[in-house]
Parts: sequence; structure tokens; C-alpha cells
Amino acid sequence: MIPEQHHTHHPALSFWEHLIIMGRGAGQVFFQENALTGLFFIIAIFVAAYHEGNWGVGIGGLTGLVLSTYTAILLKFDRDLVKAGLMGFNGILVGCALPTFLNPSLTMWIYLIVASVAVVVIQGFCMSILRRFSLPSSTWPFVLTGWIFMLAAYHFSALSITGLPSARLYTITHLNKAAYNILFMHIDHPFHDIALQFLHITFLNIAQAFLLNYWLSGVIIVIGLLMNTRVGTLLAIMGSMIAILIARIGYLSDTAMLDGLYGFSATLTAMAIGCVFIPWSRWSFCYAICATIFTVILNAAMVTLLSPVGIPPFTGPYVLSMWIFLAAWSARAIKD
Amino acid sequence: MIPEQHHTHHPALSFWEHLIIMGRGAGQVFFQENALTGLFFIIAIFVAAYHEGNWGVGIGGLTGLVLSTYTAILLKFDRDLVKAGLMGFNGILVGCALPTFLNPSLTMWIYLIVASVAVVVIQGFCMSILRRFSLPSSTWPFVLTGWIFMLAAYHFSALSITGLPSARLYTITHLNKAAYNILFMHIDHPFHDIALQFLHITFLNIAQAFLLNYWLSGVIIVIGLLMNTRVGTLLAIMGSMIAILIARIGYLSDTAMLDGLYGFSATLTAMAIGCVFIPWSRWSFCYAICATIFTVILNAAMVTLLSPVGIPPFTGPYVLSMWIFLAAWSARAIKD
Amino acid sequence: MIPEQHHTHHPALSFWEHLIIMGRGAGQVFFQENALTGLFFIIAIFVAAYHEGNWGVGIGGLTGLVLSTYTAILLKFDRDLVKAGLMGFNGILVGCALPTFLNPSLTMWIYLIVASVAVVVIQGFCMSILRRFSLPSSTWPFVLTGWIFMLAAYHFSALSITGLPSARLYTITHLNKAAYNILFMHIDHPFHDIALQFLHITFLNIAQAFLLNYWLSGVIIVIGLLMNTRVGTLLAIMGSMIAILIARIGYLSDTAMLDGLYGFSATLTAMAIGCVFIPWSRWSFCYAICATIFTVILNAAMVTLLSPVGIPPFTGPYVLSMWIFLAAWSARAIKD
Repeated sequence: MIPEQHHTHHPALSFWEHLIIMGRGAGQVFFQENALTGLFFIIAIFVAAYHEGNWGVGIGGLTGLVLSTYTAILLKFDRDLVKAGLMGFNGILVGCALPTFLNPSLTMWIYLIVASVAVVVIQGFCMSILRRFSLPSSTWPFVLTGWIFMLAAYHFSALSITGLPSARLYTITHLNKAAYNILFMHIDHPFHDIALQFLHITFLNIAQAFLLNYWLSGVIIVIGLLMNTRVGTLLAIMGSMIAILIARIGYLSDTAMLDGLYGFSATLTAMAIGCVFIPWSRWSFCYAICATIFTVILNAAMVTLLSPVGIPPFTGPYVLSMWIFLAAWSARAIKD
Repeated sequence: MIPEQHHTHHPALSFWEHLIIMGRGAGQVFFQENALTGLFFIIAIFVAAYHEGNWGVGIGGLTGLVLSTYTAILLKFDRDLVKAGLMGFNGILVGCALPTFLNPSLTMWIYLIVASVAVVVIQGFCMSILRRFSLPSSTWPFVLTGWIFMLAAYHFSALSITGLPSARLYTITHLNKAAYNILFMHIDHPFHDIALQFLHITFLNIAQAFLLNYWLSGVIIVIGLLMNTRVGTLLAIMGSMIAILIARIGYLSDTAMLDGLYGFSATLTAMAIGCVFIPWSRWSFCYAICATIFTVILNAAMVTLLSPVGIPPFTGPYVLSMWIFLAAWSARAIKD
Repeated sequence: MIPEQHHTHHPALSFWEHLIIMGRGAGQVFFQENALTGLFFIIAIFVAAYHEGNWGVGIGGLTGLVLSTYTAILLKFDRDLVKAGLMGFNGILVGCALPTFLNPSLTMWIYLIVASVAVVVIQGFCMSILRRFSLPSSTWPFVLTGWIFMLAAYHFSALSITGLPSARLYTITHLNKAAYNILFMHIDHPFHDIALQFLHITFLNIAQAFLLNYWLSGVIIVIGLLMNTRVGTLLAIMGSMIAILIARIGYLSDTAMLDGLYGFSATLTAMAIGCVFIPWSRWSFCYAICATIFTVILNAAMVTLLSPVGIPPFTGPYVLSMWIFLAAWSARAIKD
């Protein structure tokens, strides 16, 4: 658009380069600009899609990835951003999210296409606002797009909602015996059962960053991560485990914990603060632990906050925690 | 205030200039700095007030327009802003909104006066924040003021709420046969009925930008627009029609569609992106179509979002969409 | 952290200086960098704690004050901010809030410790964002932290919620005869009863800035204020009284008014706009009256807004009103 503003003529990308960009787009969900890592993530998506019998998630993810990347190219977003896969990772998440919560139908697929284009514009908006604060937009465009398209879905009867939480008002908490018994160190459970449960949720937490409800996908994602970053993998697993421990300490009453829904934001925060946006050091490690604990609490807070409108927090708790801890890190020199 | 800061002594405005400023204030609701256009808009308001038998809307609109403009002068806001009518259009909207949702009474009129003053301060706040992002405040001050004064009205028993939506929680969507049958191409309806219905809602959408529930007011507004801008008029009508088409495609289940409540934000977005804040071109035209489609979805999303607190989205979906598409437009050169 | 960034070696603080900083931290809740004033405030907290039989509020307040101040020192926040008590006043409020709404238990105290650390990071975040707009973060970090930790409390069954409002949806307002009869100039009440009631709520409004439900604490706070600022004390009392008058004029239907819950934000706004962030003058005095009236309306609006998620507005209405009126004050020279 307005071509006279953009004199730079980019050499056409080869077919191979196109594939690499797509792979990186998938990899960037966990901050990895590595197409091989991204390939593992895509495999993880399809493994879960097969396991759940919902191929829409896999096809949707690829559609979102491709459409958002090419929309960014068409809109002439900075070519280096595109090449790094940074204009694709929000699209893949949008593409995974919609078929998870909506029944497949022609209208759903049109809706998914619109959302995959919209997420690029929303990312442009977020980048434009956030660079004044030196903060990364990360998966916030996906969170916003997901919220908007889920909230709107309640009004279009051509869309059939299947997976969204029912709108409700929270009242006083009661100990959820089911969650408590299954998950944590109950006297009737032998140790190896508990350890297995712990590991199971650790990997589910990681899989749920792609909205996948299958532990094996979490394992594949971890392998993909290991291809590119050992510190990052360590932090991801640590973040996931901290989430489980906090849930145990506070007797989290929400059985969604067992599905990994309280840990994926924590996983991302641990990586983002521990080694991505703040360079890895023993200080950033301690800071990342604090940020991860905060993310679990913020996750619980956002579940309550969003409950009356029937939408999940997605990776919102991660992005908000990351912004808070990142901005505070640089605020320490401020004299107000 | 603090007169020593403002050395510029403005020559007193003549009576005629005062009238011109008021006219422009009305015209600016549809981005037109033209007092004659504004006069048509004011006539449209009074025609609807007569039709609905609610004179409060007309008198309230004028009160809001005059009070907010003079508050801005008293507070020494930039004189050029005032002269362009830019300190009046939020006031006229606030003045139309309150009598639409609250029963007329002495307290309501006091409330309206307070709101007409508050909207100027809120506009100052919005301008102060938004200029860091090079974004216009547009009707956001009206949206914020409307929300605050409607939310607060639930607590003051001297105010009697008549028109606000009941607070509710949304659940799974069902096809609303009523909306479906009346509105769209049902087999039992002859073509000219459908075409008439389509035109009817097209003009209602435009009238509802002033919160007017009367198609004839929409026609008068279009005539007023034509006095000043042919491209703008075209875009307004196009935006209104796109909203109806999207509702048709997605089987919008909300009968509020039939009252024009899903189209007025779309109308404003089409104009704002198509020719006001981005210069008219074939690119901005395509971009405006995308923005308009997004506005309809965001409108539906905001209806769900605001439903638990019993307030309507007003022109919020327009302003947010406009910001998103405007900021994204300029973000394309960002290297993050 | 990253010590090489901070070459300045601060001389160790003496025990006496530590005490002074804590006193100032308490004093800053009402904008007073005066340890003696702060001492009065702490006494006010303990008097109310004794009266309510809830020592947790007093101990929690001190814990929050000390922990947040030392967290700020550990994180190497600017030493002058720390010395002025500006890294402690949000902590004392968090420390008072949690035991007010949650039953004391080991988990509650762990939760309070986490919140007292988190509020410092959140303050760093707020400062980092708000300095781009030349706005003070004031008690917003407390408001955010309070909201997050209260919203999350609904999910941890190790925490037992006692004082939070039940989540609800607001519907049409009805005149609350109870509030009306008790409070205002009812024909059956002799004048001195009404005057006493008026004074009672005036001081309750001030006490509730520390979440204290005891008029005598309000009196002690006023005495502490008088030690340092006569104009500020006058404005605080005026703000408190304006809140009662607005409630009377609009027939506020919420009996929370009688507990001072509609006046503490108004009290803070009156001081903040009248003499703290805008220098005291007859103009700032008039402006502060407008801001105070707006705060009462915004307070009512936020009660409705937050009602579906079961959290109170805390001092949110004050901070938002203060930002709006402060930014608008400086926006008057903007040419858009």
C-alpha cells in the first residue's frame, strides 16, 4: 500500500525460504527463531489433533500461520520481522484456538480466515503502542483477537460454540475434593502415582501453550525446544512445575488445573523473563521464579475476571506478567 | 485558569460565530467541520425526538453541545479546537444519550449538566494520552462519559433508568428466528419487502450514530453529509450496508440489529478509515472495508463484554477499530 | 541486581532513618512525607484493629509497609524514592486490605507476603508506563495488586474469603428506604441526630482510605494530617462532605455509603487536585471541587462495573479521577 513510501524492493523469496519462515513462525510461540523447532511444534499440534479427533485444530493452525504471514507481507510490514517468523506466531495460535472452541462449519472457516487477517492488523496496533514503552507485543495480539472473536461468537448463530466456559459469577471458594484427591499427595495414593500425575501435568502445561490437551504433544514441544535452547527448556519445565506447586500450596479448587490450564502462561513467563527478554543470569533466574509465581496468581485472577463473559484468559496472564516484570526491571532507575 | 500562562487574548466571538461553532460541533459527529451540515444533524435529532415523543433528546443534545463548548472556552482549551467544533461533538452525544436511557426529571437534568462539563475534562485527558500515539480521541470521551454516567445511574435512585439493557450473562447462541425471518431473504417474503427492509436499516444505522431510532433522521443526516462530502457519504452508506451483510452471513441472533444498533459504529469506521484519518485512495477504500467488517465483529464482542454490567457499547467499537487500523497502518515501518 | 549498572554506593541507613522511612511510608497514603503524621496513621490503624477485634489488619499493614520498602531497596529502586516513603505506602494499603477481606491463616499470611513483594514490582511497572504521560502512579499499584489478589482468592480454597462483596448483576435502582431514612434529614429525625450522622460519616470516609471502618480512626488521621498541612486537612474534610452531599442529592441507594465506602476516594481526590499535584490556588480549589463530584459518580460507576466479579473499587475512583483531571489540566494547550 502507498508503494511510494516503500522504495525498498525485496528480492522474491524462494520456496525453501517460505517454508523456513513458516517454521520459524511456529517456533516463535516459544520464542525460538528456528524452523526445525517449529516443525516439532507443528507435529505436536497434529499429534494432539489426531488424539482428540479434531483435525480442524491442525488445519486451522497452519491456515492461521500462512494467512497471517502473507497478510503481513501484503501489508508491507518490515521484511525482517516477517523473515524471523514474528508475523506468524500469533496467527498459528488464532488458528488453533478457533476450532478448539467452535464447531467446524463453513462459517467457522470464514471466521477463522477473517481472524487470521485481523490478528496482523491488531499486532501492528500493539507494536505501535508498545514500542513507546519498549515492551514486546508477544502473544498479546493473539489474546486480543481470541477474546474479540470468542465474545462475538455468542451473537452469530451460524457459529456453534462448543468449548468456551459458561458465563458465571464466582462466589465463595470451597475445597474441591475431586481436584485435591486426584492431584496431590492424598494419603491413599502411592508415591509413583503422584509422581506420574505431576509429570503428566508438567507436559500438559507446556502443550496448552498451543491449546493442546495432550501430554505427548508437550513432550514433542520439549524435544523441539531442546534442539535450540537448553536454558529455555529448563526454564519452561521449571515454570510448569512451579505452577503445580503453587496450586498445591493454595489448594487450587479449579479442576482446570488438571488439564494444564493453570500452567501454560507460567511456562511462557519463566522463559520470557529468565532468558528471552532479560539475558540469562542468576539474577534473571530468581526474578523469573518470582514472575512465574505471580503469573499463576494472575491466571487465577483473570479466570474470575473473565468468568461473567464466558471467555478463557488464553496467554493473557503470561503477557501481562511479562510486561509488569520487564517494565519494573527497567523502572528501577526512575526518579519519578 | 492560571491566566499568566495564556498571554494570547482572543478577540470576542460574534453571535454569528457562536452559532457557526455550535453547528460545526454537531457536524463533527460525522467528521464535518460545516455548520450547515451540523444544522441538518440537529434537525435530524429533533425529527426523531418528535417521532419518539421524547423532546428531552433534542433539548439534551443542544444543552450538551452548548455547555461542553463553553466549558472548553472557560477552561481555556485551544481556541482553534473550539472554533472547529471539536470541543462540542462529544457534548451533543452525551446530551442525546442521557435522556435516551434515563427518565426526564430535575435530577436527570442536573446529571446531564454535570456530564456535559465532565466530558470536556475527559476529552482533555484523552487528548493528553492519545497524542503520544498520534491517535485522535474522536468520540471516545463520549463513550467513557456515557459508560461512567450510565453505570453510576444504577446507584442513584433519584435517576430512573428506562432504556439500558438488562444486565445478563450470555450463554450458547441459538438462531433467533424472529430476527432471521423479519430481516433476511426469507422465502415467504417478496423481494421488494426485503429491499425495503434493507434500506430501512441502512438509514437507521446512520441515525443511531446520534442514538436516534428513526430512519427518516438517517435520511436527513445523509442529506447533511452530501452538503459537504460525496466520498464520505458514499462510505457512510457502504459501511452501513456492510454491517447488514455481515449480520446476514453470520446469522446474527440479536434483534438489536433491526434497530440499527449493529451498524452505526461500522458507518463511522468506514468514513474514518476511508477518507478522514487516512486520505481517500483505492488502498484506503479496501482498508476501510476490512476495518468495517472488523467493527461489526468487535461490536458483537463488546455487547457480550458489557452485558454483565448493563451498558451498551455506544460508539466504542468504532473508536477502537479506528485506533487499531490507524495505528497498524503506521506500524508497518516498525522494526520492533 | 546487575550491580555494575549501579555504581552509586549508598551509605547504610541508621536504625532511626529506617523508622523515619517507615513513618513516611504510612504518611504518603495521604501525600504527607512526614513520619510523625505517619505515626498517627499507624495508630489509627491499630485503634480500628482493636475496635474491630481484627489485629491482622494492623500487623498486616506493618508487614506490608516494611516488606515493600525493603523489597524496593533490594531491587535497587531509586534511593530518594525509598527515603521519601514512596515505596512503602502501597505496601501498607495491601497489608491492611488482605486481612480485611480474607480470614487469617498461615496461607493468608504467605499470600500477604507475596502481595507485599508483588506490589513493588507492579509499582515499578506503573511508574515506567505513567512517566511517559507525566502522571503519578499514586495508589494505583495497591489497587491493581488488591484486585489481582482478591480475584485470585476465589480459586484458592486455602484462603477463606470473608469480606468481599458477593458477585451480582445490577438491575434497575430502587429507592433504598433504609439508607434514606437513617442518613438524611428525614422528618422524624431531630436536627442534632442528622448533624451527628453527617459528622460520623465524614470521619468514616477518611478512615476508609486505610480500609478502616471506625470513625475514631478518621479523627486520629485528621489530627495526623493537621501536624503537616492545614490546607490538605481542609480539603480532605471538604472532599468527604461533598461525597455525602452528592449521595443526598442523588438519593444514593447503596447503604455502603453509611460505612464511608463512597467518600474515601473523594477525600483523596480533593487533596490530590486541590493542593498536592496542582499547587493550591482559588482555581485549583474550584477544580478540586469538580474533580471530587466526579469521583463520587465514578465510584458509583465502578461499584457497578466490578459487581459481577465480586471485588470493591478500592481507591481506583480516586486515582482515575486524579489522572483525568490532571491530564486535562495540562491538555488545555494541546492543538490536537
